[in-house]
Amino acid sequence: MASTVATIRHATREDVPTILSLIHELAAYENATDKVDATEESLTRTLSHYDPSTSSFSEGFAKTLLLTDPDGAIAGMALYFYNYSTWTGAPGIYLEDLFVKEGHRKKGYGKMLLKELAKETLRIGGKRLEWACLDWNEPSLQFYQSLAIGAKKKQEWVGLRVEDAALGRLAGE
Amino acid sequence: MASTVATIRHATREDVPTILSLIHELAAYENATDKVDATEESLTRTLSHYDPSTSSFSEGFAKTLLLTDPDGAIAGMALYFYNYSTWTGAPGIYLEDLFVKEGHRKKGYGKMLLKELAKETLRIGGKRLEWACLDWNEPSLQFYQSLAIGAKKKQEWVGLRVEDAALGRLAGE
Repeated sequence: MASTVATIRHATREDVPTILSLIHELAAYENATDKVDATEESLTRTLSHYDPSTSSFSEGFAKTLLLTDPDGAIAGMALYFYNYSTWTGAPGIYLEDLFVKEGHRKKGYGKMLLKELAKETLRIGGKRLEWACLDWNEPSLQFYQSLAIGAKKKQEWVGLRVEDAALGRLAGE
Repeated sequence: MASTVATIRHATREDVPTILSLIHELAAYENATDKVDATEESLTRTLSHYDPSTSSFSEGFAKTLLLTDPDGAIAGMALYFYNYSTWTGAPGIYLEDLFVKEGHRKKGYGKMLLKELAKETLRIGGKRLEWACLDWNEPSLQFYQSLAIGAKKKQEWVGLRVEDAALGRLAGE
């Protein structure tokens, strides 16, 4: 459906192939194509899909916003989930991946997606919109700075992770 | 209810005052008492509470595990939510706060809570159990190291956050 402006909507189950293709493009951009294990099946099973016929979401662990450009082409996405802050006793939004396709950049689409997430954060009574950036990724850090949306760097945290065989060992299986 | 061993269960709505008091103790431990805005009301409204009568959870943004020591006293908690990895196309668990009360430490309770979360991660088909630690918090980093559970430091990420007035501005309100 063409429009005079870019539009943003939540992804439906039918959008899964599009989402997977955007994930692959993002991975290529980050030189991480070998890290993508996601499949249409896993995305269908684990994402929370919007159902326009009932105006509701299926159960899932993350939601996806898709941005459609004025010509009707999918130009970008924001994949996010809800997080929680114990100090504030309130939820927030964690933006896991923001991606605008090559050829669609420098049009303000990234900021449009962030703005939509800020609205969603307030809608759920949340207090924070957060995401992370690799500390050597200067272009990305500069991009977020250039948006002038007041994104502040958090204190220095060390992320810790248990995965693969170690996760099974810890679970005692 | 006394038991010969420590036990772990999901918190119910009735546990909210206990959770708030644990949050305050944790904040005191981290010299951050002034940062706690959480109230019984906000925790009741935003946490997902377990209902033993229906074996189900209320809608909410995070869940809490409580550890009861053999004398029946609440000795610790783990507050967590589900996150999502685009690369793997799978959910994971993010441990927001792990806390064992003073006087109950050095008994393996922290590891018991992490083990329970590892089991929950596998139960939901997840691949990662993650948390974060302030990079100057050597005692905590050493604690996680000492557990020998295979926790690996992630690559260096810079956390970015939009909150307070900036969040409202971005949302255009």
